Amino acid sequence: MRIFGIDPGSTVTGFGVIEKRRGRVHYVHAGCIKTKSSEPIGDRLARIHEGLVIALKAHKPNEVAIESIFRYKSSESALRLGQARGVALLAIAQNGYDAHEYNPMTIKRTVGAHGKADKKAVAKMVEMLLGTKIEGPADMTDALAIAICHANHSKLLSRVPR
Amino acid sequence: MRIFGIDPGSTVTGFGVIEKRRGRVHYVHAGCIKTKSSEPIGDRLARIHEGLVIALKAHKPNEVAIESIFRYKSSESALRLGQARGVALLAIAQNGYDAHEYNPMTIKRTVGAHGKADKKAVAKMVEMLLGTKIEGPADMTDALAIAICHANHSKLLSRVPR
Repeated sequence: MRIFGIDPGSTVTGFGVIEKRRGRVHYVHAGCIKTKSSEPIGDRLARIHEGLVIALKAHKPNEVAIESIFRYKSSESALRLGQARGVALLAIAQNGYDAHEYNPMTIKRTVGAHGKADKKAVAKMVEMLLGTKIEGPADMTDALAIAICHANHSKLLSRVPR
Repeated sequence: MRIFGIDPGSTVTGFGVIEKRRGRVHYVHAGCIKTKSSEPIGDRLARIHEGLVIALKAHKPNEVAIESIFRYKSSESALRLGQARGVALLAIAQNGYDAHEYNPMTIKRTVGAHGKADKKAVAKMVEMLLGTKIEGPADMTDALAIAICHANHSKLLSRVPR
């Protein structure tokens, strides 16, 4: 059972792929899509969308998970995040998947970190759980945490992609 | 010179097409994409994206305009709007256009309404300017207002789509 996790962001969108076999999670892949704030927003969103579509097609997961909507400090940062999240949700739907959503608190607790743990603490727990060191931005370990969260919460029944 | 305006929203996304000929604006088309809040968000975003791609291909505008980022009451509504705006910006970029952005205040003032005018007042001014009655949600007249705003602000030079 292969699970694809996404941590969307306009600057860095992380994604991670794990497999659940005999009740244990195994690391498969992690990557990220970086864009520059100096580029037109449309081009940045197009790159995030294309990158996720390519990764989904390459890794052919059974299920896809993403962080759920949450409160943000400012409406401007929420709008920016919303734009990145919108093209991520589009990529998921266009490839025939349902988006399984988990809130940040649940994700953190599932990997054994407390609800207010920072990205660094989450990264440490993810690396320990998967028994591998992840080189790159914390958005990659966050994406893996989202995938691990889904592995532990879903019954992983034979849900057929739409 | 044909201009395509977009007023994105997760429930209703309006779009409007106008032409500027000899310094005057003329109505070409207006439409909207409606989605139900009961549907999965990915499906809704896919429909907004697809609808805009189809309309852009059908009307072949020279330029595309959209409302710029603005402050919102709650971060939740900003995030939801951001998602719809994200797939709209994606559709614009994927079809080779730059997104010309105008803030709500500028848009309202361009059509002769005051900065705090409501959708109804904007609709009235748009219908007067274009000399036609627009049947449908106010998101359509808002989209036409965005297109009119661009017609009046841009020099409409021979900007080549990327």
